[in-house]
Amino acid sequence: MTFALKKTDALSRARLGSLVLPRGEVDTPVFMPVGTNATVKSLRPDEIKAMEYRLILSNAYHLYLRPGDRLIRDAGGLHDFMNWQGNILTDSGGFQVFSLSELRTVEEDGVRFRSHIDGSRHFFSPEKVVEIQRNLGSEIMMPIDECTPGATPHDRAAAAEERTFCWARGCRAAFEKLCDPERQSLFGIVQGNVYNDLRERSAKNITSLDFPGYAIGGLSVGERKDVMYSLIAFTVDFLPQDRPRYLMGVGEPTDLLEAVSRGIDMFDCVLPTRNARNASLFTRDGAVGLRNRRFMEQYSPVDPECNCYTCIHYSAAYLRHLFRTKEILASVLSTIHNLHFLAELMAGIRLSIKEERFSLFKMSFLARYLGE
Amino acid sequence: MTFALKKTDALSRARLGSLVLPRGEVDTPVFMPVGTNATVKSLRPDEIKAMEYRLILSNAYHLYLRPGDRLIRDAGGLHDFMNWQGNILTDSGGFQVFSLSELRTVEEDGVRFRSHIDGSRHFFSPEKVVEIQRNLGSEIMMPIDECTPGATPHDRAAAAEERTFCWARGCRAAFEKLCDPERQSLFGIVQGNVYNDLRERSAKNITSLDFPGYAIGGLSVGERKDVMYSLIAFTVDFLPQDRPRYLMGVGEPTDLLEAVSRGIDMFDCVLPTRNARNASLFTRDGAVGLRNRRFMEQYSPVDPECNCYTCIHYSAAYLRHLFRTKEILASVLSTIHNLHFLAELMAGIRLSIKEERFSLFKMSFLARYLGE
Repeated sequence: MTFALKKTDALSRARLGSLVLPRGEVDTPVFMPVGTNATVKSLRPDEIKAMEYRLILSNAYHLYLRPGDRLIRDAGGLHDFMNWQGNILTDSGGFQVFSLSELRTVEEDGVRFRSHIDGSRHFFSPEKVVEIQRNLGSEIMMPIDECTPGATPHDRAAAAEERTFCWARGCRAAFEKLCDPERQSLFGIVQGNVYNDLRERSAKNITSLDFPGYAIGGLSVGERKDVMYSLIAFTVDFLPQDRPRYLMGVGEPTDLLEAVSRGIDMFDCVLPTRNARNASLFTRDGAVGLRNRRFMEQYSPVDPECNCYTCIHYSAAYLRHLFRTKEILASVLSTIHNLHFLAELMAGIRLSIKEERFSLFKMSFLARYLGE
Repeated sequence: MTFALKKTDALSRARLGSLVLPRGEVDTPVFMPVGTNATVKSLRPDEIKAMEYRLILSNAYHLYLRPGDRLIRDAGGLHDFMNWQGNILTDSGGFQVFSLSELRTVEEDGVRFRSHIDGSRHFFSPEKVVEIQRNLGSEIMMPIDECTPGATPHDRAAAAEERTFCWARGCRAAFEKLCDPERQSLFGIVQGNVYNDLRERSAKNITSLDFPGYAIGGLSVGERKDVMYSLIAFTVDFLPQDRPRYLMGVGEPTDLLEAVSRGIDMFDCVLPTRNARNASLFTRDGAVGLRNRRFMEQYSPVDPECNCYTCIHYSAAYLRHLFRTKEILASVLSTIHNLHFLAELMAGIRLSIKEERFSLFKMSFLARYLGE
């Protein structure tokens, strides 16, 4: 994997770049749709490809539990298993272990937990999560980290940061032992909760290990937006210019713009796909709830300016009908719309950086989106 | 609408024909996928079209209740509303009123009922169901009929047959008043429960009204298979050769073959789509339940001889994983497979009639499908 920084914005820290991965080039800033269970919920891979996505995320924790990373390996790897021939980034499962699993105990060399599905007992060590992701065969893998929730005291967050650093070294060693660096890359993850000193220490520790890319974890977990934005800006200062920066779990349009302007290159989030299934659709004038009566007789598309498959072929009235009758097609068409919306937003961001008008693009998008 | 009878099988009553409809020609025998709520559940219309379907069924009862036939008319008609540019047959809602609705009272000039959704009160008269279907704009519409359940005594079934005949006349009159025969056609429906004398009387009554096509209703509602088959053969004898014959609500592969061999041209059924969502998939060797452990590590397709989108791109192991994780894509991919299977079965039936080997085709299909 190589990362080429093509341009940096003059008025902000926004960057235009390109990630060259084994299954094709990915222009940055980029949003990655989430395919937790080896499927971007409700969509066929050709529908995702048609929206110009070339990199999606999948979850090692979920796939390890069901159907099992070895089964996926035996099926020919995650790409063949799910019929996605683009690139895949897998998270390590750290976040899921700390948010979904039960009865977890953090130990020196890993975390013991029970499956949220059947209560079965498991242990994730740095070696284990690298082995899982090697079996999945993702182009980018993530180390296991200790994610602390929003209101964690400084001393506990500091201990988690130390453990995260220790595990990053363990993952690094396992990666060198088990993986082919021509096919897979291992990123580092910066933790540190909401504390500037811990974020700084974590960034310095993790970058000392010289990873090909760096993620910022543990944000967008309940802290105020302005706190998140300033933590991003603060942390990015300690990350090298020539490596991609990935903000984990962020996908709200306003957050994408604010994070890009603070120097972030990569994003993932379940928000566009989950909201779609709950009838919440992005429009240039903000998100709308399709169950609302005001769409009952709207025979034009949800977003008249959108040229996604859904808006070209269907009225808001039809989509509302599908949601009211609980039809599966409601999820399919809404997911297409929301992912298309983000693909177009990211393409707009990239073009505006290239044409040196990113701040203007951001301002006018936000003014309209927020109705200000 | 015109119907051309192209060939009749020498060894059975199987017929090859062609239905020329305003939105394209449909070769018969044909199976119609069911799109109850203005969507063939889980599929995009282009996926249905790709499987060579040119005629689907939708339900007047459901669409009248939600979103309302007038709303669909105002949206430009059912075809535009659901983005399906092929032909549509709508049933009258008679069957749904008698199977789904609550507190129904049959009156001389129609049926009073309460919606199964919200308990609201409604009245379907012959005029009303024709008006609804005119608003929907389907190419083929059905008259309202009184469907009696499996174990109805002769006198009650006779009364229902009389009422069905009376309502057919009412629908006929309403059709002549309200509809454009260049764009829409009204079929007749033969009732009579399991009684030969009532089937004969109904067929004679209904055909005396000279409809362009005839449906056989009230079968496959719990009676024994041999009873159903002999009732089909018996009834078909009273229907004119030069009109299409439509057996309502039948879609099981063995039933399709047995009915075709008794002279049926058209079918509809929720079975292939509903079964697909419940992980039951057709194969040449019979239906299989995909949740079964024996598919856990089957990295080949569900049906290795199938060339549908699903079998070309996905393993049985992947589909099983999608069902276990309750993913929407499970329904999408399985529905594609089951509808493709029936499209291919019907195409095989048509070709075998054309090539004068239908009975052989039927025998070898059934021998393998039933594992005999």
